Amino acid sequence: VGCFVVDGIEELYAIDNEARNKGITQKILLRITPGIDPHTHKKISTGSVESKFGIPIGEDALRVTSEAVGLQNVCLVGFHCHVGSQIFECEPFLNACDIMFKFLADVKHKFGFCAKVLNLGGGFGVRYTAEDPIIDLEQKIAEVGKKVNECCKEFDITPPSIMMEPGRSIVADAGLTLYSVGSVKEIEGYQNYVSIDGGMTDNPRYTLYESPYTVALASRINDECDFTATIAGRCCESGDLIQENVKIPKPQRNEILAVFTTGAYNYSMASNYNRVPRPPVIMLTKDSEYTAVRRETLEDICLLDE
Amino acid sequence: VGCFVVDGIEELYAIDNEARNKGITQKILLRITPGIDPHTHKKISTGSVESKFGIPIGEDALRVTSEAVGLQNVCLVGFHCHVGSQIFECEPFLNACDIMFKFLADVKHKFGFCAKVLNLGGGFGVRYTAEDPIIDLEQKIAEVGKKVNECCKEFDITPPSIMMEPGRSIVADAGLTLYSVGSVKEIEGYQNYVSIDGGMTDNPRYTLYESPYTVALASRINDECDFTATIAGRCCESGDLIQENVKIPKPQRNEILAVFTTGAYNYSMASNYNRVPRPPVIMLTKDSEYTAVRRETLEDICLLDE
Repeated sequence: VGCFVVDGIEELYAIDNEARNKGITQKILLRITPGIDPHTHKKISTGSVESKFGIPIGEDALRVTSEAVGLQNVCLVGFHCHVGSQIFECEPFLNACDIMFKFLADVKHKFGFCAKVLNLGGGFGVRYTAEDPIIDLEQKIAEVGKKVNECCKEFDITPPSIMMEPGRSIVADAGLTLYSVGSVKEIEGYQNYVSIDGGMTDNPRYTLYESPYTVALASRINDECDFTATIAGRCCESGDLIQENVKIPKPQRNEILAVFTTGAYNYSMASNYNRVPRPPVIMLTKDSEYTAVRRETLEDICLLDE
Repeated sequence: VGCFVVDGIEELYAIDNEARNKGITQKILLRITPGIDPHTHKKISTGSVESKFGIPIGEDALRVTSEAVGLQNVCLVGFHCHVGSQIFECEPFLNACDIMFKFLADVKHKFGFCAKVLNLGGGFGVRYTAEDPIIDLEQKIAEVGKKVNECCKEFDITPPSIMMEPGRSIVADAGLTLYSVGSVKEIEGYQNYVSIDGGMTDNPRYTLYESPYTVALASRINDECDFTATIAGRCCESGDLIQENVKIPKPQRNEILAVFTTGAYNYSMASNYNRVPRPPVIMLTKDSEYTAVRRETLEDICLLDE
């Protein structure tokens, strides 16, 4: 393994032990929680000191760093932090720079250790709906770069390599889920349900976090969106919804419904709840298509049953 | 299929069509939403008229019943309702009787149709924690039975067969999940995390609904519970927790943690999120043990990848 990101003192000792058993020196980063609340959903906020992730900035982080520097079979390369997901402003990253570079200066001063790498994590937002702002990534990264240079000067630090982890913001956009419409149910005075042949089993994000998505009737994409519908999944759960109160043309049974921006944190979270098989994943290029993940069968689902 | 529970008019027509194609007559129940809020979690409440499930009581239900009675290839046997889950009082079931028998009387009067079956659904609660009341099921069922007889008299109805669906309350208790403890992280002034080799991937219920569970350190079950811990899963989600602030003895790495009452709505909801393999299911009897579902391997997880 090229480099482990170490989450706490116990992991540090465990990796050092394992590396000693193998007769190697293992490169590591220490994951620090910088104590930043990026104003995102509680469940996707990861940078506050009470987070389950990382080592709280301050005494704890200094103590673990001092241990890491002293161990024989780990090679501390630098530090990692991650403040959350779906962040549209630069501010949380700039704040993270302020805090992390001050920490790097402390570490340099106290232990003579100069970090070669600072990983500022990921979290740049994805446009799930038209309400989400458009991010000019080049400009945002330039802002972070400027801040890094300022911090290095301010704290008299040799600039480390800066890493960022733009996972979701690279792939989310590349995915789109297609469902077949089942029953359409109009409950006078309450709401309309459009049931689909999927739901929380392939995309649990609305059920988990009420995540917004853009929904369209793919089979009549240019028709007027004059029908307000809640998109309901197949499971025996009232919460198995893909989205509430979206505007689409009123669908007919067997029409195709599209949910956009499902290329990240979707298929990977799929379950077989209610023994619903997972759908296939089809890759499209300009000229061709191929099956990346085949459709799950009943036989597949029963494979582990003895 | 012995009997379909039909959720709406579109399903009714679809089943009638399919039965005609096959040259059979299909027995059905119609699922009616009686408009009852059982004071349970929104996501497990299923009986209110705006629910995604069933046909709203009143004009809608009468219209669908009238259709069902008239169709050639379905045989309407009666009605189904379900008010929700984790219900500890009898009241919601008694209210459902009042409403459903009045509906049966309406249907008898208007269409001359006498229901042979009334399915009152499931929903009796399970004791996830010591705070949950103990249910005397025999007494509760006797109360429902008494109410059924009263309603039959009041509305001059031949008593239908009464069905109930005690799924969770039969099997939840029979299951218990065992985890190995990983790192224990104490964040001074905030909270303590005990990480485990599982989490929302095998039991997403706390992440979904903040469901309460009883947690114990199985490897030292009689030790003093003087450590307050949040049980954290393996996934890259702040919300991947099994329970917050439970009292257990302070665990060591590799000790065994038990989560009780996981025999229903647990393994069935498991995912491979973060490519975490699903754990095995071991059945125990008084004298023996056997593997009911084997442990998932990396090979299993990659089986669908092409």
